[in-house]
Amino acid sequence: MATIYDIAVGAALNVVTAVAFLLLFAFLRLQPINDRVYFPKWYLKGTRASPASAGATVAAAKYINLDMRSYLNFLSWMPAALKMPDDELIQHAGLDSVVYLRIYRTGLKIFVPITILAFAVLVPLNWTNDTLETLKVVHSDIDKLSISNIPYGSKRFIAHLVMAYVFTFWTCYILMKEYQIVAKMRLRFLASEKRRPDQFTVLVRNIPSDPDESVSELVEHFFLVNHPGHYLKHQVVYNTNKLAGLVEKKKQMQNWLDYYQLKFERKAERPTTKTGFFGCFGSDVDAIDYYRSEIEKIGKEEADEHKKVMKDPKSIMPAAFVSFRSRWGAAVAAQTQQTSNPTVWLTEWAPEPRDVYWNNLSIPFVSLTVRRLIIGVAFFFLNFFYVIPIAFVQTLANVEGIEKALPFLEPFIETPTIKSFIQGFLPGLALKIFLILLPTILMFMSQFEGLVSHSSLERRTASKYFIFLFFNVFLGSIVTGSALEQLNTYLHQSANDIPRIIGVAIPMKATFFITYVMVDGWTGVALEVLRLKAFIMFHLKNFFLVKTEKDREEAMDPGSICLYWSEPRIQLYFLLGLVYAVVTPLLLPFILVFFALAYVVYRHQIINVYNQRYESGAQFWPNVHLRIITALIVSQLLFLGLLSTKGLEEATPALLALPVLTIWFHKYCKHRYEPAFVRNPLQEVMRKDTLERARERNFDLKAYLADAYLHPVFKSNEADKFYVADDPGAEAVIVPTKRQSRRITPVQSEDGGSGRLNLMESVHER
Amino acid sequence: MATIYDIAVGAALNVVTAVAFLLLFAFLRLQPINDRVYFPKWYLKGTRASPASAGATVAAAKYINLDMRSYLNFLSWMPAALKMPDDELIQHAGLDSVVYLRIYRTGLKIFVPITILAFAVLVPLNWTNDTLETLKVVHSDIDKLSISNIPYGSKRFIAHLVMAYVFTFWTCYILMKEYQIVAKMRLRFLASEKRRPDQFTVLVRNIPSDPDESVSELVEHFFLVNHPGHYLKHQVVYNTNKLAGLVEKKKQMQNWLDYYQLKFERKAERPTTKTGFFGCFGSDVDAIDYYRSEIEKIGKEEADEHKKVMKDPKSIMPAAFVSFRSRWGAAVAAQTQQTSNPTVWLTEWAPEPRDVYWNNLSIPFVSLTVRRLIIGVAFFFLNFFYVIPIAFVQTLANVEGIEKALPFLEPFIETPTIKSFIQGFLPGLALKIFLILLPTILMFMSQFEGLVSHSSLERRTASKYFIFLFFNVFLGSIVTGSALEQLNTYLHQSANDIPRIIGVAIPMKATFFITYVMVDGWTGVALEVLRLKAFIMFHLKNFFLVKTEKDREEAMDPGSICLYWSEPRIQLYFLLGLVYAVVTPLLLPFILVFFALAYVVYRHQIINVYNQRYESGAQFWPNVHLRIITALIVSQLLFLGLLSTKGLEEATPALLALPVLTIWFHKYCKHRYEPAFVRNPLQEVMRKDTLERARERNFDLKAYLADAYLHPVFKSNEADKFYVADDPGAEAVIVPTKRQSRRITPVQSEDGGSGRLNLMESVHER
Repeated sequence: MATIYDIAVGAALNVVTAVAFLLLFAFLRLQPINDRVYFPKWYLKGTRASPASAGATVAAAKYINLDMRSYLNFLSWMPAALKMPDDELIQHAGLDSVVYLRIYRTGLKIFVPITILAFAVLVPLNWTNDTLETLKVVHSDIDKLSISNIPYGSKRFIAHLVMAYVFTFWTCYILMKEYQIVAKMRLRFLASEKRRPDQFTVLVRNIPSDPDESVSELVEHFFLVNHPGHYLKHQVVYNTNKLAGLVEKKKQMQNWLDYYQLKFERKAERPTTKTGFFGCFGSDVDAIDYYRSEIEKIGKEEADEHKKVMKDPKSIMPAAFVSFRSRWGAAVAAQTQQTSNPTVWLTEWAPEPRDVYWNNLSIPFVSLTVRRLIIGVAFFFLNFFYVIPIAFVQTLANVEGIEKALPFLEPFIETPTIKSFIQGFLPGLALKIFLILLPTILMFMSQFEGLVSHSSLERRTASKYFIFLFFNVFLGSIVTGSALEQLNTYLHQSANDIPRIIGVAIPMKATFFITYVMVDGWTGVALEVLRLKAFIMFHLKNFFLVKTEKDREEAMDPGSICLYWSEPRIQLYFLLGLVYAVVTPLLLPFILVFFALAYVVYRHQIINVYNQRYESGAQFWPNVHLRIITALIVSQLLFLGLLSTKGLEEATPALLALPVLTIWFHKYCKHRYEPAFVRNPLQEVMRKDTLERARERNFDLKAYLADAYLHPVFKSNEADKFYVADDPGAEAVIVPTKRQSRRITPVQSEDGGSGRLNLMESVHER
Repeated sequence: MATIYDIAVGAALNVVTAVAFLLLFAFLRLQPINDRVYFPKWYLKGTRASPASAGATVAAAKYINLDMRSYLNFLSWMPAALKMPDDELIQHAGLDSVVYLRIYRTGLKIFVPITILAFAVLVPLNWTNDTLETLKVVHSDIDKLSISNIPYGSKRFIAHLVMAYVFTFWTCYILMKEYQIVAKMRLRFLASEKRRPDQFTVLVRNIPSDPDESVSELVEHFFLVNHPGHYLKHQVVYNTNKLAGLVEKKKQMQNWLDYYQLKFERKAERPTTKTGFFGCFGSDVDAIDYYRSEIEKIGKEEADEHKKVMKDPKSIMPAAFVSFRSRWGAAVAAQTQQTSNPTVWLTEWAPEPRDVYWNNLSIPFVSLTVRRLIIGVAFFFLNFFYVIPIAFVQTLANVEGIEKALPFLEPFIETPTIKSFIQGFLPGLALKIFLILLPTILMFMSQFEGLVSHSSLERRTASKYFIFLFFNVFLGSIVTGSALEQLNTYLHQSANDIPRIIGVAIPMKATFFITYVMVDGWTGVALEVLRLKAFIMFHLKNFFLVKTEKDREEAMDPGSICLYWSEPRIQLYFLLGLVYAVVTPLLLPFILVFFALAYVVYRHQIINVYNQRYESGAQFWPNVHLRIITALIVSQLLFLGLLSTKGLEEATPALLALPVLTIWFHKYCKHRYEPAFVRNPLQEVMRKDTLERARERNFDLKAYLADAYLHPVFKSNEADKFYVADDPGAEAVIVPTKRQSRRITPVQSEDGGSGRLNLMESVHER
């Protein structure tokens, strides 16, 4: 049992670590050499240039900050991060980022008053009993502050009951306010946005096959007939998986070529390489010549494949992006059902071009339902049975197993220190690797489900990850045992007993979760601001690869928020806070510190570092809301379970009303605010249409939308051709606005994209 | 414990009763005097006239059928009812009726193969054991046919398990096929429909208030701006509750006037009445003069109120029917969100004019959510605690209570026979009255919820009634005890144990349910075809009130299907069939007889009697589907509970998969077919628009829609004026097509309507 003293020591340790990280960060960020690690966003915006080009006088000043005064106020970045007003921040980083920060603010708004109230009312009530002492239970001072210290059947539980109501109402009130604000922000954001291709475009999926007409003709005829006067143009979707693979391969070859050319320049000796597997086997050849010829070969293949894709009707998928003359036309097409068969001609508001997840555009409708079922079952097993394969790997990955598989390592492994290291470390490693890979695995599962935009993929993955965290981290820590063992417990216990079993265990786990919050929350957030991985990678690349300014720009890895990974983790803190608010209020201040610190740190990162890959206009908020509501209901049920063992049976109906009311509240909010995140109201689009028509009467929308929804492979391909052919005339077709936006947030590699080539392009343009 | 012999006797008794009813019906329907009771539909269609006007030669033949040959084939109506092909039936009675009949057909399709399979596989398996005999349990032969006869832990349960799968798959297969067929029927029906006002009209609710513009101006401006080129006209909704009351009152007065005039004609002596309460107190006056002056007085009041309503802006509700130039425009407006605030300018596809439930059009949005919550809670209490007020009434309605309240009855009540009658009968009566009134009570609850069409009200009420029947009839008969007692059981039992407790009780209740099916199903259906209530009412009216052909037409009460009352009762048979299919297959033939008999009887009634009040285009089918799926899942869970006590633990996971798969199947069906019942696909409406534009280029849609959505009170009011003023010119504005449809299905009294006045009108027209 941890005492207050233990907790204080733990807190001190974590504070020291966190402060050390922050100090290190404060120091590193002032060094010009790290500028691109800690301020990449400004480079991408073009408002900051490398110190080299700024014409520094002292050579050393290029790398190290010699201005001693700047070290004095080393925490200055914190107020600086808080200073930027919301509107400017939306301009700077997009709505997604700003609303993401609101999650932390919501946490503060919910928990500051709850903490104050809990400390004013519940803590004295709990403290002024001596149940634990009279019962002679082993206990710590922390338990004296918790609900455990109230005697069986005491009337003091009524105070807890009332507080449960007050906390629920306060949380709901804040949630509603926040939903309202975010919805308003989203609407204002959409209204103030510049012209964007997705405003005019609808994604049509599952176009039925027709024996007489090609997909393209079919789409054109269908929309000309059923949306007369509104239809403008369409863009069919090609199956470009092979082409994208070739482009990717060529890019790798180009990287190697760059590497060897740099080596050659430095050593003045032509480097050689081996043609076999990863350059390890096979005969020696001249590296530069080899890669040049390889690139040429792949280039040809690519051109052939390109032609084939464009010609072969089989490579056209039954999906298309259909653009309309006005936003009104697009909004109508996206919100209505097209034919009597609801499984064909499915229309939805098109995602931003850079948000499209191209690989999933061709999945047929029936398959989608089956895929969802498969993933549902698979996720169920992953959630509850994930320990089985890991245990299997662990049994394999022992000393004997390795010796059998790789006999030549035997003498090395048999060294006592190494042997004990393997035995002690490897089993844990398998679990650790699994947990690190988990969000990626979940993302793969979501991709298999067939969602067509990165933003929806992230949202779906976040939901899965939250469920996993809930069962395996939250419940797993309380009931102690893997979810598999828990499942066994749940199945053999009666359903009503489950809240009781978990509820009773909750007060005992308070100290564990306090430690968890400090390690994962405080130190973890402080580590985030350091950006260790990006720091190391940048300097490695800078040392080995960078030769031009362009390369340096490329070596920068601004990263992004990674909603699917970070949001569910915040939700865990909401859950902990709500569950422990009534039971052990001592946990609350620790969570407050987390929210406050994380808010400042992420605000700083969003201003200076992260570069979002897409802008969904805060579409994830309904999910955030839903998960906080879930946490609230879980907390109510567990409190109900706990109180049912405390000799206050009369309280049960009063507590049962809480989840019912909460669910009703959620339904109300869903009805009231969710449409703002899903649908595109006609009044708004009509207003925008009218304004724009008045301002720019002769705007050529068709040209503007020309290849907005072309697969990035085709675009990079063309850009590449221009690069070779050096034909600036052809490039003029591409509208500068689009290019600008692509430059700020380059498409990342995930969609077989071409961030690198884009940057090459943009350099070429100058 | 009932033996096979008991069941046989019961069956014989019920068959005899049912056949007696059918014989009586066959006799009565051949009498010309009953023609209007048993064939009202044909009178309303105008293809059948009273025998009087047919010019019969013998006076007696007007009332009694003397043609002996016609009595010989007295069951001829059955094949006749089956003969009419579906397409003709849709023409004759509408899609709602035809699809309603499909529910019975679905029952036959599901249960005929299940019965055959169960008798071929399960009955022999169950019979060839002697568990019950060796255990010396009190049992009957029926139990020997049921699953109870299989010994503990026997491998024979695997056959039941497999059958549970087979039955589930078969049911799902039929359900999917039926959903598909009904969806197709609905689409074909909508496509083949003639021009109807609701095709062009959208109901707009919750129009925000504007300080500068009236509701009417606001609506016009809003739709002119946001649906340019599509908006045609609109009709605001007036608060006519007071006016409707006056019209209703006037109608009553008119009825009395008619009655006294008839009395005067017969007795040649001016009748008198009393002016006080219900004509019981007060001074005597000349009845005819009194009612004439009253009618005149109310007529004036009505005219004043009419003027007031039309002028006073406060009597205009924030709702309007907005009509568009094309079906396309209406479909778009109905399916899109209008403004960024999803709680104002709510659009939905307008119900048919006669389907509109006017009283609810003004309820604001926020109030709707609260109302739904209130009704949810109220229904919960009604469902589980309905015995409490009844018990209270029962304690009051005993002999002493009556003596106290009405002392003058004391000597009468104290007579021993009467006293015992009251004591034995009254308590049961309170419950009986409640159960008879229940559908009406549930309908009131649905009305309070704020639904705006009769069809949606019926659907919502049907859902409530099914839930009530499920808990209080199905579970109530199994667990024995009111739902309140059950609730107590459920709350104190663990949730997992509930299916077990109920499941174990199921085989024991088979004989009870067999009796229930025979009494409620067989005899009940045979009674339906007799139409006792309508028979008595018609002859009473005919004797006392009817003086003209018009009156006779009015005395006819064709009735309608009453979906909210009859559909949940069919669902109870689905539930029983699915639950007992695996457990006691002997129940199945009884259910088959019910489905077959009910199908023939209701088909006959639909052809010859019922007159639907509205046509929703089978919009209730998704609910029917959902309820059968619910019954399926309940049957699976109960079988799981039963099997868990039979020593076959390994079967549990295999059985748990069934409900999961069923839910998934339901989701699939919902996604695939439900949109056809909710939305109006653009391709279809565009096709219809184009066709119509080509056919009738100069059709004046505005005139056609002129007062399609005027409150019936205004219409009847005007019609009434015409009746007085005799101005045929003014009537010419009303388009004949609409009138025709109103004549076939006159608006009933529920909405303060004016069926009577319509008929007066139509007579006047000739």
